[in-house]
Amino acid sequence: MTALTIDLDRVLHRLKVLFDDAASPDGGVSRLALTDADHRGRDQLVKWMTDAGLAVSVDAIGNIFGVRAGAEEGPVVMTGSHLDAVRNGGRYDGSYGVIAGLEVIEALNAAGVSTRRPLGVVSFTNEEGVRFAPDMMGSLVHSGGLTLADALESRCAEGASVGDELQRIGYAGPLAPGSIKAHSFVELHIEQGPVLESESVTIGAVENLQGISWTEFHLEGQANHAGTTPLRGRRDAGYVAAQIITFVRRLSDASAGRQLATCGQLELHPGQINVIPGQAQLTVDLRNADHDALTQAEHELDEFVAITAQHEGISVESKRLVRTNPVVFAPRIVETIEAAADRCGYSVRRMTSGAGHDAQMMATVCPSAMIFIPSIGGVSHNPQESSHSEDLGAGVDVLGHCLVDIAQR
Amino acid sequence: MTALTIDLDRVLHRLKVLFDDAASPDGGVSRLALTDADHRGRDQLVKWMTDAGLAVSVDAIGNIFGVRAGAEEGPVVMTGSHLDAVRNGGRYDGSYGVIAGLEVIEALNAAGVSTRRPLGVVSFTNEEGVRFAPDMMGSLVHSGGLTLADALESRCAEGASVGDELQRIGYAGPLAPGSIKAHSFVELHIEQGPVLESESVTIGAVENLQGISWTEFHLEGQANHAGTTPLRGRRDAGYVAAQIITFVRRLSDASAGRQLATCGQLELHPGQINVIPGQAQLTVDLRNADHDALTQAEHELDEFVAITAQHEGISVESKRLVRTNPVVFAPRIVETIEAAADRCGYSVRRMTSGAGHDAQMMATVCPSAMIFIPSIGGVSHNPQESSHSEDLGAGVDVLGHCLVDIAQR
Repeated sequence: MTALTIDLDRVLHRLKVLFDDAASPDGGVSRLALTDADHRGRDQLVKWMTDAGLAVSVDAIGNIFGVRAGAEEGPVVMTGSHLDAVRNGGRYDGSYGVIAGLEVIEALNAAGVSTRRPLGVVSFTNEEGVRFAPDMMGSLVHSGGLTLADALESRCAEGASVGDELQRIGYAGPLAPGSIKAHSFVELHIEQGPVLESESVTIGAVENLQGISWTEFHLEGQANHAGTTPLRGRRDAGYVAAQIITFVRRLSDASAGRQLATCGQLELHPGQINVIPGQAQLTVDLRNADHDALTQAEHELDEFVAITAQHEGISVESKRLVRTNPVVFAPRIVETIEAAADRCGYSVRRMTSGAGHDAQMMATVCPSAMIFIPSIGGVSHNPQESSHSEDLGAGVDVLGHCLVDIAQR
Repeated sequence: MTALTIDLDRVLHRLKVLFDDAASPDGGVSRLALTDADHRGRDQLVKWMTDAGLAVSVDAIGNIFGVRAGAEEGPVVMTGSHLDAVRNGGRYDGSYGVIAGLEVIEALNAAGVSTRRPLGVVSFTNEEGVRFAPDMMGSLVHSGGLTLADALESRCAEGASVGDELQRIGYAGPLAPGSIKAHSFVELHIEQGPVLESESVTIGAVENLQGISWTEFHLEGQANHAGTTPLRGRRDAGYVAAQIITFVRRLSDASAGRQLATCGQLELHPGQINVIPGQAQLTVDLRNADHDALTQAEHELDEFVAITAQHEGISVESKRLVRTNPVVFAPRIVETIEAAADRCGYSVRRMTSGAGHDAQMMATVCPSAMIFIPSIGGVSHNPQESSHSEDLGAGVDVLGHCLVDIAQR
């Protein structure tokens, strides 16, 4: 194993260049997919890749690949993430993983090291899904989970399609999606949660990713006078909504927190102090890394809602808005991450990703896993998103050792 | 006791005249206080009172009195209610009590019966409080609970004051408020709730009126990612709000429904499916006919909110928006109502008023009580508000017998 010399200043400088170019007035970064800001960020990345001697190619959904040849031909040991950002988001979400991959290759170049397998860095199109649905679009098309045609037809609120916008910014590439075969995929990303910071651990070896279930409930009872309607005759949609909110917390408690459950939206109608709510609309976000447990939680929720609503004389309409399965990453890659962190002298723990990432799409086509570094205060999708420089450096170090390990294996 | 012959057709006709004159496009009646519609309704009432031979006078807050002399001089045995209505409200709320009082006097006139004490009908200004605060304004000023000067300065959203509007419609009368002394006050009103209908009882002898406590809670926690924030670190303002809603229902359950509790308003921020609510604002409406029990419920609520919020790491600001004391009506008047209903052959039960009424203000200056008749489906403040004709007739019957009983006593 060759010692790699990572140039952390170069990493931080490149992240600053990307940030400054798309800084929003409120202190964050706004680089929505396929906008002019995204166009400038892509051009910058292609220049850096070219300068580093990589073979750059762009596929038909706009994913940008930079590949460094290995001693042997064959599938590419790949890393990367995404350059697009939410509105007024943080500077490290996505960009860090792309720039880190580039830095590992530059460090190998500087050390004159060649690897057995080719190495590649990818920047996937539209991971955030803010401007075009679905999110993780580029990695989803690359891995065959969404057809190119469907992806190109997705439209933003202003009417333009992904296909239109790719043409406009010159990133409708000639390569058929999926052409560049990955041997394996390792994505480095900020945690976007508080676990590593709160436990003072530097490296997260992400072994799985939660499945997500979003359900919307519309409850219909009867609006009535708060003073003249006896307790017995009430059909209070707000009360049933409140019972659902406390129930999902109990679900989470009973699982010792392995089952996450959140009600982020609740609206009551007519919404007057002295009127019993006749209607309530609420959403439930369930997440679990275990497929069966998530399905069980959905069943328990649906059953609770049905019984509780019936007891109050409330009718229910529900709609499953989103359902993704949990992802289990490749144990061998996770072990490689742990070993690399140990070797570099960083504390490491296995963990679950609570958010979605491109790596979950790549996991369907090749052995994949993720490396997390601490997020200060666990904050993300926010101008306050940040990570300590030494942690940013540690992540690149560990990524480099992992990639070389796999590429030489 | 003289048998009175009530002309139910005349009662229904007059109610229809008042309804038709202020019908709103959505099927209800809109006669907000001191508007042109209220002006027309007042003129109509004054004409009917004058035609019935009553001595009509208007006080400085616009209350309209029609008095029929008794054999003796002295305080007036009074009945009445209000002509103003909410936006798109029902046809019987208020108007019924005024027209019924007028009908009793016309029936006495027709029968040639004179009473020992004078009888009077009053229509109080701005009972609903929709256009000008506070509600029950006319009866409050009449009974000395609000100064005339303060009432006249109350302004509507468009800027006009009560004083301006009384002048404009010609109902700033010469009489000092409170000049006409009441011997007692009996108000006939629709129930606006489901109790009488559900028990198939025709007459409610209203023995008390609930005190009302309105509190607004502002809960401040921390908005955070639904997927990456572990259970343990959550400061979920929506969860605390839901616990409050279920707590107040338990309060109500534990009191067997004597303590009413309603959360009519709840807003969560930022209100996104995958974000833990960082802020919640909700209102609690508590009502109880027992003063000590209502105070106790307020204490229990405040204590529960403090403990529950602290447990979740949530800060609380609360504001008591409204607090009125329960009213106990005069037992002798309530007994008179029961006796009159018995004598007329109507089923009767004692009950509590869940809503506020002018009679609660009159109760501070003379023995008072109320008569309720059934509301179809318990619906009120709604175009669907209605009552069966036979019940409307029964109410006028019972009112007539009560008034004569008291006036002859």
